[in-house]
Amino acid sequence: MKLASLKNIGQKDLGRDGCLIVVSRDMQRAQRVKNIIGTLQEALENWSEYEPELQQVYKRLNQVHLNQKLLPEQFLLDVRQLAAPLPRAYQWLDGSAYLSHVERVRKARGAELPEALLTDPLMYQGASDDFSGACEPIYAADETWGIDLEGEVTIVTDDVPYQCTLTEAAQHIRLIMLINDVSLRNLIPSELAKGFGFIQGKPSSCFSPVAVTPDELGEFWHDCKVHRPLHVSVNGAQLGRPDAGDGMQFNFARLITHAAKTRRLMAGTIIGSGTVSNADESKGCCCLVEKRVLEIINSGEAKTSFLKVGDQVEIEMFNEQGDSIFGAISQEVKHC
Amino acid sequence: MKLASLKNIGQKDLGRDGCLIVVSRDMQRAQRVKNIIGTLQEALENWSEYEPELQQVYKRLNQVHLNQKLLPEQFLLDVRQLAAPLPRAYQWLDGSAYLSHVERVRKARGAELPEALLTDPLMYQGASDDFSGACEPIYAADETWGIDLEGEVTIVTDDVPYQCTLTEAAQHIRLIMLINDVSLRNLIPSELAKGFGFIQGKPSSCFSPVAVTPDELGEFWHDCKVHRPLHVSVNGAQLGRPDAGDGMQFNFARLITHAAKTRRLMAGTIIGSGTVSNADESKGCCCLVEKRVLEIINSGEAKTSFLKVGDQVEIEMFNEQGDSIFGAISQEVKHC
Repeated sequence: MKLASLKNIGQKDLGRDGCLIVVSRDMQRAQRVKNIIGTLQEALENWSEYEPELQQVYKRLNQVHLNQKLLPEQFLLDVRQLAAPLPRAYQWLDGSAYLSHVERVRKARGAELPEALLTDPLMYQGASDDFSGACEPIYAADETWGIDLEGEVTIVTDDVPYQCTLTEAAQHIRLIMLINDVSLRNLIPSELAKGFGFIQGKPSSCFSPVAVTPDELGEFWHDCKVHRPLHVSVNGAQLGRPDAGDGMQFNFARLITHAAKTRRLMAGTIIGSGTVSNADESKGCCCLVEKRVLEIINSGEAKTSFLKVGDQVEIEMFNEQGDSIFGAISQEVKHC
Repeated sequence: MKLASLKNIGQKDLGRDGCLIVVSRDMQRAQRVKNIIGTLQEALENWSEYEPELQQVYKRLNQVHLNQKLLPEQFLLDVRQLAAPLPRAYQWLDGSAYLSHVERVRKARGAELPEALLTDPLMYQGASDDFSGACEPIYAADETWGIDLEGEVTIVTDDVPYQCTLTEAAQHIRLIMLINDVSLRNLIPSELAKGFGFIQGKPSSCFSPVAVTPDELGEFWHDCKVHRPLHVSVNGAQLGRPDAGDGMQFNFARLITHAAKTRRLMAGTIIGSGTVSNADESKGCCCLVEKRVLEIINSGEAKTSFLKVGDQVEIEMFNEQGDSIFGAISQEVKHC
C-alpha cells in the first residue's frame, strides 16, 4: 500500500499534518480517506485498526481502469500537492548503518572511527518539527556552509515497547520511505567537536512523496532491509546507485532495539538507515562528501563542489520493471 | 496564566495530547476550555488568536472564592490527573547554559571542555515523543546505568522564523516550565565518544504540572532568564537551591537564535536551559553527578550514589511568598 499526505486542495490549506490519502501503485491516482482516518500520524497510533480498511481502498484504487470515471473522493495525483508523508513527527532518529559511508565521511573531517563500529550502531536524534515535501526546495542562507544531500531509506514504527527484542522490533515496522537528510558539511566539524551531536549541521530533511507498507516491496524487503539500488543524481548527472541491501551493518530491527534500550518509542517514530553506501566504489555515492573523499584518495584533490543555489537533487528507487516505488525526491537549492 | 494538560477524567482517557485546561494561580482549581481550543499544541500554533481568551478564563478562575460553587467546566485540581503540559512535542532542544555544570560534568567523565565555551552554546536534540507527567515514575530497567536527575528551566516557542534576531526570538517565548531531564550517567561516556550525541543516555524527560506565561513570573522574568532559586531534593533531603538567573551564560533568546541559524523552529518547540548550576558551591546542585564531582574535589571520594529504585525526586520553584509557581515535579524511580 502507498500512503501520502496532501498539503492543500486548490487554495485550501489542509493544516500542518496534511490529509491522509491512499495512492495507487502507479502513482497516477489517489483517494481521500477522511471517512476512515484524518492523518497518517493518527493511523499509526491505531495501525491494526486502520490498516485493513486502508488496504481495501488501495486494492480498489489499483483496479480503476485508465479511462474509468473516478469516484468523488478519487482524483488524479500531482505530487507537487504533497507534503512529506509525515509533515512533522514526534521523533526522527537517524542511524548510520553503512560502514563505507562512516569510514569515508570521518576520513573527510579527520575524525576517529568509533571503536565498536561493527557491533554498536551509530545514531543521532534529529529535528522532526518541520519536514519538507518531496518537491519543496532545500533552503540555505549561505552557500559556504557546504550544502550536501544524503540519500537514505527510513522506516516508520507504531508503538514500540521498552527493550523490545529484534523479533518484536521487526513487527513494529509499518512504513518505509526515502529521505534526503540534508547536511551542512562545513558547520559539522566544530559542532560535533562540542560532543552533543547535530543542531545547525542538519536543517530540514525531505521525504519521498509516498510511504509504502513493507508488503509493497515484496521480495525486496527481507532481513529488515530494502534490497534495491538507490538512484541519486545532481543536476541530472548520476551520483550513485548503491544497493540499499548491501553493506548495511545494522538492519532496521537492530536500529529500533538500539533506540528502545532505555525507553519506549511512540507511534510515528521515524528511523533512518544513514546514507546508503557500498564499499564497491563503482556504485557511486549518495552524498557529495563521499565523492569528494574518493576523489582525494584517487586523484589527490576534490573536484566536486557542494551544492549551490539552483542545483537540483533527485533521489528515487525503482522496481525491476523500472517503476518508481516511492516517487522521486526532487529538490532545488534556494537561497532564503 | 497557568496551563496544563489533563490526561483523563475518571476512567476516560483523553488521548495522547491530553486536554488543555487553565489552572488557577494557587493551583487549587482548573477549567476545561474545549470551547476555545482542544490541546496546548493547537493553542501554540495560533497563539495570538487563543491567548487573550485563555487569559480571560484565567482571570475569572482566580476570582472564584473558596466556597463558591464551581461552574460545570470548572473542577478541583488533582495534579496526579495531569500529563506533561505537552505530553509529546515535535522538538525538544536542550541547551547547557550554566558553565559551572558543564565544567563539573566534563570533569566527572574526563572529557575536554568545548573551546568556545563562552561564546557558542552547547545544545543537543532530545527525544520528544514521550514526556512524563509531573507525578509519573522514572522507569529504568537497570540501576547500574547511573540514574541521575537534572533540574532545569525550559521555554516553549510558537513559530520561530529562520535566522531570527535576538529581539525577535524573545518575542516567541510563550511558555515556561520546569523539567527533570533524566540522565543515565554510566551509558553516556561511550555514547558521546561516538560523536553523535545522546540516544540511550537520555530516557523520557518529565515536566512540571503547569506551564506558565512569562507575565506570570513578573519581575522574576527578565533578560530572557528566570531569576528564582530552583529547589531540588532527593528523598526529602535538599540537593540544591541554585538561582536559575545566575551563571546562565546564554539566555533563552540566545539559545533560540542558535537553534534557528539554519532552519525555522515550529510551534511547540521546547528549549531547555541545561542543568541549573551556580559557581557558588554552597547553593548545592540540581543533579547528582555535580555533587559527586564536588565530593571528589573536596574530600577525595564520591559519597553520594546515583538514584536507586524507590528513590524520590522533587523539583520545584517558589515565589517570594513561598507559593509554588509551576507545581512540583515529584517522581519515584521504578523498575520496569
